[in-house]
Amino acid sequence: MPATYEWCSSDTHAFPPGLPPFGHEYLAVDQLFELLRRFGTFGSLEGGGISRLAASDADGAARREFAQQLERAGAEVGVDAVGNVHGRFALAGADAPWILCGSHLDSQPRAGELDGTYGVLAGLCAAQALMRAREAGVTFSSNLCLVNWCNEEGARFQPSMLGSAVYAGKLSPEIALSRKDAHGIELGDALGRIGFLGGAPIPVNPRAYIELHIEQGPMLEAAGLHLGVVRRNWGAVKQKLVFVGAQAHTGPTPMAERRDALLAASRVIVKLRQLAEELGTTDSPLHTSVGRIHVEPNSPNTVAARAEIDIELRSADPAVLERARACLHDIATSAAQRDMVRFECASTEHRPAKALSAKAQRWIDASASRLGVALMAMDTISGHDALNLIDLCEVGLIFVPSAGGITHHPDESTPPADLALGLRALTDVLWSACTEPLASGEPN
Amino acid sequence: MPATYEWCSSDTHAFPPGLPPFGHEYLAVDQLFELLRRFGTFGSLEGGGISRLAASDADGAARREFAQQLERAGAEVGVDAVGNVHGRFALAGADAPWILCGSHLDSQPRAGELDGTYGVLAGLCAAQALMRAREAGVTFSSNLCLVNWCNEEGARFQPSMLGSAVYAGKLSPEIALSRKDAHGIELGDALGRIGFLGGAPIPVNPRAYIELHIEQGPMLEAAGLHLGVVRRNWGAVKQKLVFVGAQAHTGPTPMAERRDALLAASRVIVKLRQLAEELGTTDSPLHTSVGRIHVEPNSPNTVAARAEIDIELRSADPAVLERARACLHDIATSAAQRDMVRFECASTEHRPAKALSAKAQRWIDASASRLGVALMAMDTISGHDALNLIDLCEVGLIFVPSAGGITHHPDESTPPADLALGLRALTDVLWSACTEPLASGEPN
Repeated sequence: MPATYEWCSSDTHAFPPGLPPFGHEYLAVDQLFELLRRFGTFGSLEGGGISRLAASDADGAARREFAQQLERAGAEVGVDAVGNVHGRFALAGADAPWILCGSHLDSQPRAGELDGTYGVLAGLCAAQALMRAREAGVTFSSNLCLVNWCNEEGARFQPSMLGSAVYAGKLSPEIALSRKDAHGIELGDALGRIGFLGGAPIPVNPRAYIELHIEQGPMLEAAGLHLGVVRRNWGAVKQKLVFVGAQAHTGPTPMAERRDALLAASRVIVKLRQLAEELGTTDSPLHTSVGRIHVEPNSPNTVAARAEIDIELRSADPAVLERARACLHDIATSAAQRDMVRFECASTEHRPAKALSAKAQRWIDASASRLGVALMAMDTISGHDALNLIDLCEVGLIFVPSAGGITHHPDESTPPADLALGLRALTDVLWSACTEPLASGEPN
Repeated sequence: MPATYEWCSSDTHAFPPGLPPFGHEYLAVDQLFELLRRFGTFGSLEGGGISRLAASDADGAARREFAQQLERAGAEVGVDAVGNVHGRFALAGADAPWILCGSHLDSQPRAGELDGTYGVLAGLCAAQALMRAREAGVTFSSNLCLVNWCNEEGARFQPSMLGSAVYAGKLSPEIALSRKDAHGIELGDALGRIGFLGGAPIPVNPRAYIELHIEQGPMLEAAGLHLGVVRRNWGAVKQKLVFVGAQAHTGPTPMAERRDALLAASRVIVKLRQLAEELGTTDSPLHTSVGRIHVEPNSPNTVAARAEIDIELRSADPAVLERARACLHDIATSAAQRDMVRFECASTEHRPAKALSAKAQRWIDASASRLGVALMAMDTISGHDALNLIDLCEVGLIFVPSAGGITHHPDESTPPADLALGLRALTDVLWSACTEPLASGEPN
């Protein structure tokens, strides 16, 4: 974050003068940096970065501050049954339909300060701009609801994007709340402890959902562009595999008799990396990874009895993804046979590749035109809460660059001018969505 | 453990009638089973087995019971500066030299009830037999000191065999007490918390150290024999390697840019298993293992920034071990280069292959003759506190079978008759050692 707000005038990427966005006069851009700085203190780590795991004390502190900011901005604040915190901005009256906007305040264990937080706080600034415009007499056709989705990251509780999955009806609240972290603590208990289990539902049947996020990849920076519109998401397969061997002494147990669960898991990790090279092509890359492993008893002198790994496969091409999934099964089977262990799939999740709403893309395109900036049509490889809402309403996802493509890392950053540009675009798109005349007889 | 003590008469492996060991009339064999049952409750786990990590609450409870048993048996109980608990049995007067006996009460995270505990409790029964003989007028030339060595397992604090290493002068008490567990707790603090940091040193310059242990391998059982004498130990190299990569998103980060520490560690784990096959021969096997891995941030959605693995290499052949150590370095270097991570060796430990005392082997051989059982001369592949004392005095290590070779596992077991046979042999050997006439002018 910059020490001062002078970026507005000094940075060459600053918003072009003379081309104010629709309603720009109501927008306090500096407020975004003030908010980012304040939220960066919740879960801040020595040596930089933040750790704000879902439903942790730090997340609780961020949620409380967010709720206060929402109230101060004139929203009606609620928490739903799975801990999603939301603020309803009454722009168009009780009978008007709803536009949603949001992202997430939770983070990875040692993350940067932007990730989901940027989208939530930019949403807050945008909502305030719309409220100011309403006070000044602008007429809106829809209300706005800003949401901080619960447990987007999936770092503490799996699956990721859990709060938005419950909202979209893809996951029951009961199953969601019973998810356990590595210490056996259930999400429901963790949310209860920080005081964020509620009963106020987010408005259903929204007309649209708009999310602003940092790219988390190098494409915009490489192209020298400052704003991206997501046209589709990559498909993802996430599997938790558990290898079960036999606990034994690492000393006298003959090599041929060992049934080493960590060894089998390691073979899978190595082979999966190879798979990305074998199945992925320049046109249809395959991303594979294992980011988490849990071993029991995990003692230097004992052959591992159990190893659990969290695998992710991602591709824009459903055929590539399907081949990868089949190969994963073969790889795990072969490793298990070789090391005389058994394995099971403890959970599997498939997020198909989909196109995002053409209408929302047009809104974003129109906004970029008004802002006078070139827009890059791009994919999202990472998951976002927006993806859970694709089948519910018009979903728009806006990206700003990530410096060096770095993310899920304390060094994650985006040039301030790009952060401001993203806010302006988000505000403009929400303005479009919330002022768009309703079709006659459109249900609210 | 058997429900009754009828094994003595019904088990075919029971001690042969008509061939009582030297001093057998003072030995209460049944007491051993009673003690094993009692100590099996400290750290007992649901579903079987025990977890009695060094300096844990469960270890504290076992230590307190041990100290009480020592006192009741007439020993002078002490705790030394590194938490070794010992009892001095005054068999031969204040000026007489010392014979040591012992093993350890700490365990692996999910272990059986025998492992080191058997040797400690058999030592207690043997010491009581010698004390009874002394009361009956038998003359001893040496005193006996029974020791429960601290942190033999190395499961919670590394290195393993820590308490005996300090006694042998191989490790300073300061370094030993500053070892940290996975939660950053220092051994010294953990020992203080359970009340087992003391200032009573174990007698120095002992004439001999005798340890009884379960084999932890399949050799005795395979040969149909019931007692083993260790002639040498395998050499061992233990290294903690740390791979440092770059934290990144498992989604959009291009595969070619990833610096995945878990992937590099996994390559090493797989290659080390291969190494055992490549370098080991039938005559000189090589055992390799990685039993513990610690990954940061260990989140499903984040490329691992750091992976720490605990590696063990073991061989009876110093040349094989040295080649394996060199290959380990090459393997780690190659994996690190391939995955663009760096690595460092956080700790390394080398326990050379050595011959055990010929004199102690003769004592054990003579005892087996008196007991009328065949003795198997064998290697120890696993580490034992005895190995730390090899250069200090005559060191004897006695093995009894492990059913199925299973150890470091709740299913670890030894036929009761073999447990009793081991106790009789230990008592007999300690009797020999403690009554052996001193050479003229032998220092105490």
